Amino acid sequence: MWDRRDFLDIDSLSLQDIGLILKCAEIFENYSGRGNKLEMCRGEILVTAFFEPSTRTEKSFEAAMYVLGGDVLRHHEAGSSREKGESKIDTLHVLEQYSDIIAIRDPEVGMMRSYADSLKIPVINAGDGFNQHPTQTMLDLYTIKKEIGKLTGLTVVFFGDLKYGRTVHSLIKALRLFGDNKFYGVSPKGLELTDVYTGKDYKEIEMDDVTKIKPDVIYSTRIQKERMHPEERDNYSYEINKKFMEKLPAKTRIMHPLPRIDEIHPEIDDDPRFIPFKQVRNGLHTRMALLALMLDHEKEILSLSKKR
Amino acid sequence: MWDRRDFLDIDSLSLQDIGLILKCAEIFENYSGRGNKLEMCRGEILVTAFFEPSTRTEKSFEAAMYVLGGDVLRHHEAGSSREKGESKIDTLHVLEQYSDIIAIRDPEVGMMRSYADSLKIPVINAGDGFNQHPTQTMLDLYTIKKEIGKLTGLTVVFFGDLKYGRTVHSLIKALRLFGDNKFYGVSPKGLELTDVYTGKDYKEIEMDDVTKIKPDVIYSTRIQKERMHPEERDNYSYEINKKFMEKLPAKTRIMHPLPRIDEIHPEIDDDPRFIPFKQVRNGLHTRMALLALMLDHEKEILSLSKKR
Amino acid sequence: MWDRRDFLDIDSLSLQDIGLILKCAEIFENYSGRGNKLEMCRGEILVTAFFEPSTRTEKSFEAAMYVLGGDVLRHHEAGSSREKGESKIDTLHVLEQYSDIIAIRDPEVGMMRSYADSLKIPVINAGDGFNQHPTQTMLDLYTIKKEIGKLTGLTVVFFGDLKYGRTVHSLIKALRLFGDNKFYGVSPKGLELTDVYTGKDYKEIEMDDVTKIKPDVIYSTRIQKERMHPEERDNYSYEINKKFMEKLPAKTRIMHPLPRIDEIHPEIDDDPRFIPFKQVRNGLHTRMALLALMLDHEKEILSLSKKR
Repeated sequence: MWDRRDFLDIDSLSLQDIGLILKCAEIFENYSGRGNKLEMCRGEILVTAFFEPSTRTEKSFEAAMYVLGGDVLRHHEAGSSREKGESKIDTLHVLEQYSDIIAIRDPEVGMMRSYADSLKIPVINAGDGFNQHPTQTMLDLYTIKKEIGKLTGLTVVFFGDLKYGRTVHSLIKALRLFGDNKFYGVSPKGLELTDVYTGKDYKEIEMDDVTKIKPDVIYSTRIQKERMHPEERDNYSYEINKKFMEKLPAKTRIMHPLPRIDEIHPEIDDDPRFIPFKQVRNGLHTRMALLALMLDHEKEILSLSKKR
Repeated sequence: MWDRRDFLDIDSLSLQDIGLILKCAEIFENYSGRGNKLEMCRGEILVTAFFEPSTRTEKSFEAAMYVLGGDVLRHHEAGSSREKGESKIDTLHVLEQYSDIIAIRDPEVGMMRSYADSLKIPVINAGDGFNQHPTQTMLDLYTIKKEIGKLTGLTVVFFGDLKYGRTVHSLIKALRLFGDNKFYGVSPKGLELTDVYTGKDYKEIEMDDVTKIKPDVIYSTRIQKERMHPEERDNYSYEINKKFMEKLPAKTRIMHPLPRIDEIHPEIDDDPRFIPFKQVRNGLHTRMALLALMLDHEKEILSLSKKR
Repeated sequence: MWDRRDFLDIDSLSLQDIGLILKCAEIFENYSGRGNKLEMCRGEILVTAFFEPSTRTEKSFEAAMYVLGGDVLRHHEAGSSREKGESKIDTLHVLEQYSDIIAIRDPEVGMMRSYADSLKIPVINAGDGFNQHPTQTMLDLYTIKKEIGKLTGLTVVFFGDLKYGRTVHSLIKALRLFGDNKFYGVSPKGLELTDVYTGKDYKEIEMDDVTKIKPDVIYSTRIQKERMHPEERDNYSYEINKKFMEKLPAKTRIMHPLPRIDEIHPEIDDDPRFIPFKQVRNGLHTRMALLALMLDHEKEILSLSKKR
């Protein structure tokens, strides 16, 4: 049973919480389709309060709420009262008067707990700086489970900027909850995973070793070249392309939270092992699950699975 | 019975008009709640044409229309045909083709009447420069009636920039319609209420006198420091804080149209006499009332009160 | 029967396709009115992916989808992942995960076919640079048919910047499909219709000749003065005003895709022969027709005509 008011970080989730979200996402995936609009959240309003732009995440929440039958108010910084000097918390207190649940994106790290304590409606962390992006982690877990069939006994290679990649940090934390997984990291000099996230189950390897370990998942992230060591920058060798894919087994899945820049060559877009756009689609269903659970519709979700 | 097509200013309203809006707002407040979506405005479209940004007012109208079951088109200046040189009235004539009612925010003073005469759909003034902001006045009246229990026999202190504060101008006009109210003004030098709005029932006082007169309402507005006299600016003494609140009676309510900057210290946010966020919530219900009345749903609103 | 997946240009349409769109638009015009919301597209989501701003076209699609009972996600470039370097096609692939149909506006000419080939959902060309704007053409045809009563045997004068005016190019192509129409062009030096679009049925004339030929339609477009020859610019004589209107017969209709700048004087706005805002309204119904046909609701549309 879902009994949390807010959804702020991976650390405060139990295996049961995650399991319930994934289960409900699956129900929604099986149920929804064109024209199959739900009435579950009819008359309920989501506010997306984005103190930093992020159309991808915003659109995902928005679509999720529409499919659930609810409405959405979008708050952006541009042109808002914040430009007249209003504090973020005052802006949030205004928005909560119009809505039933709020998803907040904030460039500042670590304010989510204090926002949640101050607001009377449920709060979702839609990304706070370099810290966490827990709804992304839910869709990543859902994708791995769906594609590989399990969340334990996995071999996962993290690829790219592991120092600043918050999606990597959150995913590694979540997969450790399930246990018995092996992690590998491939990253340019200076962008290695920080000690807070490494452990006995984690090993740094070279690009050439990746194909040898036959990974279940290669989780790639955007590398901002300006963060790379100048030598490596001029000699960029972190591209996932056709040649690289040829050496990987059929079971391996290439994931990426998007946007991608140069890390993955478009020539592999038709390879069925390349699944970032499936992740996006899965994000719709996991966010539907989260919104509906947090708005107390658990029973209605579970009853959907019987309807079919 | 509601028989006006447009809602442009306080001056053209009768006591009966105001009474009907407040009554309908109360019905909506009692009726609405999470999931209690109305069907009243189903298939009707509101356009918010904002020639000047104002997310607070825009979001309030938007939420009101969603709760009523309708849809909303938002027009902003950025990226619009206005940048290609289109006149405001042409833009409005385009937007009216898609909608059933229009709320206009305009930085220019006094164009609302000519917009209304030119358009075939009902027009709401959502703020025209320093002139009027009549829907704000409706929510202020609703708030005072709800919190103090009456709209006559009141002692009201206006506080801050009374020269440019259009919400003050409109509220003082509206309260005079109800009669028998006493008004006081506290403001920095040069930002006093202009003669157009003063009268026998109005008196300027000092900050220290405020607590002595035991006001029912202190209506504070944002003071833009750049408008203050340099001497006073460096010696700013217009803050409502804990110490000030201690000297006020339990009945006094602190109101503010928001955003606030330095006029009210956040340390009093938990004081039940501080009610600006309640005003915001009341704005939702008064705007619902206004939209529904102007779209000819008076009978349906009144029948809601019997349903409960 | 509608059997096309995408709507990309006029060239690929048959007379039957156009006839069906116009017929369905007429059904919608007769059926729709305040509160007459349709349920046809309930649970379906339109994405408007505008890589170039155009609020007029965007709002028209948005309103059309709302009246049909569907929802809309709006993608703009500002603040999007595109600013992080994402390719347009990646952005489109993300958006298609959330939606059932997509309307694309692109400043680049000629990419629509490749977008459509790559996406799994139906694509509507909402304007690609100077190339085409086929939904504008549909509303122009609908307007001419409604106002003049026919789409053959017409005398049409095109007026203004005929070199860059894509709406002119598309309309002339479409009217040729119907046959037996005579076209005339009036344009500043250097902005004449290019040879690709001229033909035996086309003739350049002078401003003074226009009234003599008693046209059914004068289709005016925005003239950007910076594109005019300096001599003509200082001696601007392409204004449609009261004096000009006096010399035209009662049957003539003045059309314009808007926004207008100096081509048409506001003094003729009340003349019933001036119909650009009717065009806008017709755009709502033709876009409803297009969206509903492309989302496989042909039967439901046709059954509406029997309901009344």
